[in-house]
Amino acid sequence: MAKKFTLAEIADFLGESWQGDNLTITGLNTLEEATGSELSFLANPKYIKQIATTNAGAVIISPDHAGEVKNAVISSNPYFSFARCMGLFAEKEGFFEGVSSLAFIDPSAKIGENCTIYPFAVIGANTQIGANCTIFSGVYIGEYCKLGDNCTLTPNCVLMSRTSLGDNCYLQPGVVLGGEGFGFVRTDFGIQKIPQIGHVQIADNVEIGANTTIDRAALAKTSVGRHTCIDNLVQIGHNVQIGEETLVISQVGIAGSTKIGNKCTLAGQAGLSGHITVHDNVTIGPQAGVTKDLPENSVVSGSPTMDYSTYMRHSILQPKIPELFKRVSALEKQLAKLEQEQDSKK
Amino acid sequence: MAKKFTLAEIADFLGESWQGDNLTITGLNTLEEATGSELSFLANPKYIKQIATTNAGAVIISPDHAGEVKNAVISSNPYFSFARCMGLFAEKEGFFEGVSSLAFIDPSAKIGENCTIYPFAVIGANTQIGANCTIFSGVYIGEYCKLGDNCTLTPNCVLMSRTSLGDNCYLQPGVVLGGEGFGFVRTDFGIQKIPQIGHVQIADNVEIGANTTIDRAALAKTSVGRHTCIDNLVQIGHNVQIGEETLVISQVGIAGSTKIGNKCTLAGQAGLSGHITVHDNVTIGPQAGVTKDLPENSVVSGSPTMDYSTYMRHSILQPKIPELFKRVSALEKQLAKLEQEQDSKK
Amino acid sequence: MAKKFTLAEIADFLGESWQGDNLTITGLNTLEEATGSELSFLANPKYIKQIATTNAGAVIISPDHAGEVKNAVISSNPYFSFARCMGLFAEKEGFFEGVSSLAFIDPSAKIGENCTIYPFAVIGANTQIGANCTIFSGVYIGEYCKLGDNCTLTPNCVLMSRTSLGDNCYLQPGVVLGGEGFGFVRTDFGIQKIPQIGHVQIADNVEIGANTTIDRAALAKTSVGRHTCIDNLVQIGHNVQIGEETLVISQVGIAGSTKIGNKCTLAGQAGLSGHITVHDNVTIGPQAGVTKDLPENSVVSGSPTMDYSTYMRHSILQPKIPELFKRVSALEKQLAKLEQEQDSKK
Repeated sequence: MAKKFTLAEIADFLGESWQGDNLTITGLNTLEEATGSELSFLANPKYIKQIATTNAGAVIISPDHAGEVKNAVISSNPYFSFARCMGLFAEKEGFFEGVSSLAFIDPSAKIGENCTIYPFAVIGANTQIGANCTIFSGVYIGEYCKLGDNCTLTPNCVLMSRTSLGDNCYLQPGVVLGGEGFGFVRTDFGIQKIPQIGHVQIADNVEIGANTTIDRAALAKTSVGRHTCIDNLVQIGHNVQIGEETLVISQVGIAGSTKIGNKCTLAGQAGLSGHITVHDNVTIGPQAGVTKDLPENSVVSGSPTMDYSTYMRHSILQPKIPELFKRVSALEKQLAKLEQEQDSKK
Repeated sequence: MAKKFTLAEIADFLGESWQGDNLTITGLNTLEEATGSELSFLANPKYIKQIATTNAGAVIISPDHAGEVKNAVISSNPYFSFARCMGLFAEKEGFFEGVSSLAFIDPSAKIGENCTIYPFAVIGANTQIGANCTIFSGVYIGEYCKLGDNCTLTPNCVLMSRTSLGDNCYLQPGVVLGGEGFGFVRTDFGIQKIPQIGHVQIADNVEIGANTTIDRAALAKTSVGRHTCIDNLVQIGHNVQIGEETLVISQVGIAGSTKIGNKCTLAGQAGLSGHITVHDNVTIGPQAGVTKDLPENSVVSGSPTMDYSTYMRHSILQPKIPELFKRVSALEKQLAKLEQEQDSKK
Repeated sequence: MAKKFTLAEIADFLGESWQGDNLTITGLNTLEEATGSELSFLANPKYIKQIATTNAGAVIISPDHAGEVKNAVISSNPYFSFARCMGLFAEKEGFFEGVSSLAFIDPSAKIGENCTIYPFAVIGANTQIGANCTIFSGVYIGEYCKLGDNCTLTPNCVLMSRTSLGDNCYLQPGVVLGGEGFGFVRTDFGIQKIPQIGHVQIADNVEIGANTTIDRAALAKTSVGRHTCIDNLVQIGHNVQIGEETLVISQVGIAGSTKIGNKCTLAGQAGLSGHITVHDNVTIGPQAGVTKDLPENSVVSGSPTMDYSTYMRHSILQPKIPELFKRVSALEKQLAKLEQEQDSKK
């Protein structure tokens, strides 16, 4: 099952040099846990002591420290080289190939070349799937959807009608795209549902985490830009627009019609109100509550959000607030006493 | 694929009058984005300038402003009329009709007239499904469940045993009803599981968002009242009771045995402790932490919650707390100095 | 459908004595709601008045109060005895037995004795399932997975490749184990994906709630210890390690590489940063934000967390902070006036 490469093959793949014995490497691990047939790495010099005690068969290491190990790949960026090795050792998920006769594919759907479609996948009418896509079991793709090339939909993902994905998208299990946005309005004659007639549009190279939900738009589209990565259990409301290369960490919630720029980072459990704009390159802290527009390059945290340095000072002082109340009470008493003394002299 | 109506047909459907050319309308959009064959609307007079520049083929507009456009439907409530048009243009989700031979239906289950059951749906023993229901692929309905008429269970919804739904319920993908409540108790001899023998009961006209989970009761039932709407990724614990026409926004969590009244609104990511009562017509802010009963008509926010006006003042002052500490320190110094001066005069 | 036992049979099962008529008991309920064929319990003496008015056919009661009811099971711990009865009355979930010919099982998978595998379940290559397991519909188990004995995977659970479960694990619907960890790094040449080549390892007797997600490790494993119970919609990041007998309540998020000890309790919606250590027997409050290591036996709350008593005082004072600002302003004015008076006397 597991892949194997010699140290020379790995160095060759990385375009780097190597030294020592040309071991067969069977896996990757940390310095602490690696065994004699595993490759590890030293990125942060503060872990240099572990080099002496590690059982790793070989280490990816910078030229500065290459003298301290026998078997090594020499790299100016050991962490990045190691990450590339992880791609080398990664196994493609799945065990099935071809289009299963146990999948249910509407005759009007068009399936690209070289796709794998697992048993019990469903592909709806008038839907187009690009080339080299993998559709796992339990995936439901509704009607009039469009998938680019090289997409992977892992088990039990759901794409409701008219959802589109670009090329190279990867959906973790249980993702729901294109569910109806929350269009309910309280009126004098009860709650009225506003049917959501828009759709979801996902650009190229987007990754979406397990059980994340992205609602379709009321009108037009909810959109996610290229190379944006979304973690697990995230909620993205109707008509939200997210830019490119933005990272959205687990359990974030983004309310309807909010716009997020490019290269933003939204930390875990942050919540964003509807109808606001977060400009490019903004960083939002964990559990933050964003209620208004954020200018480019903002770094904010807290609920409601403050700029980061204020938040940090606030965080440190917060546990001292009970004491501050006491200090103010003491001041009030002292001052009253002083005033009294003053008055008595008049 | 898309529906088409003439302007006259739309006005007729709305029971309103129209003016201009009897265009064929192919869709709906905002004033900014509408094309020449689309219908838009003007609800808020502050957008009146867009009337001059819109490409919309026609506009739903109030009698006051009808003179400013050529092709129009005249309505005293343009927003509401537009929302009704969204219903007119909405496509029914799905592409399959009838009961698939690829569904697995226990022989003891009773399926009402005119139901659609997709391939790979599962319907358990002794379960009853009303008329005109649509059960998508990957749905699992356990034993002894009961669904009313006109229910829609979109892909991969799960109803564990003895769950009941009223009429006209709509479940977005991945909803889980009737999973076991979290009945674990730490004891001297380890964690004990308390089996959850109750069930989940959902009333008529309830909508539930994608990947939301509602646990079955320890005893008796967890219940949701009629016309209540629940958004995505919401957690509702065992024995919770939610009233009618309540809105529960995304990622809210409600702990066990808590009661929520009618016509409440729970904003996104709010959390409610167990065993509390939220009375009718209460509004709870986003990310709020509710730890005690809330009387009728309360409006609260914050964690733990405060009344809304206190919360707003607190929110504005919160970033100034670090400065407040400095002000108090300054006061302490000044006062000490003053006392010293005073003392020296004695 | 429902089970029935006589009062004598129930007393026998509990190893306790009984009194009164040997009724046939058809169910369990609270004192308030029980009917004449149902058994209830009195655990807390403050509810003793309900004994006079209850319609319950019989009551589990302590020896002290046994004189106040006719039909009773006498127990020194009525609550615990009642909880055991819930196990007695609980129905096993599901309606299918045996291995369905409509399941898709790779020929290389090994299925233990006496397993039930529902229609439309999928079991991947080289996977081993222990004895007496129940795999519901829509479950996907990838390649090289390993399940112990007596595991239950309810509908639509997903185990990606190389996930392992111990014995007696119970997964509520929609659980995702082994989805890829969020391994994305922002670099000068765009976002790079770090493939996640580790796996998820779950010990014996673990329960996992509906739609919860546990990511596989970057390297090595993400792990959950024996008898740990995890609620619905929880996110557990890559390389997290959770100890034994820990309770993780709904919507908690735990970021990557964080370690949680034994016998901890993490309340609902709490968030934990990555790369921190929470030692044994720690209690974390609802919506808490944990950003640093917590020593054994800590009780913390708030975001960021404070010790519990500070948090409670802070919570009470928080709504009074706007008033505190006014008090400080008043002090500043008073003091300025006093200083002026002082100066004028110099």
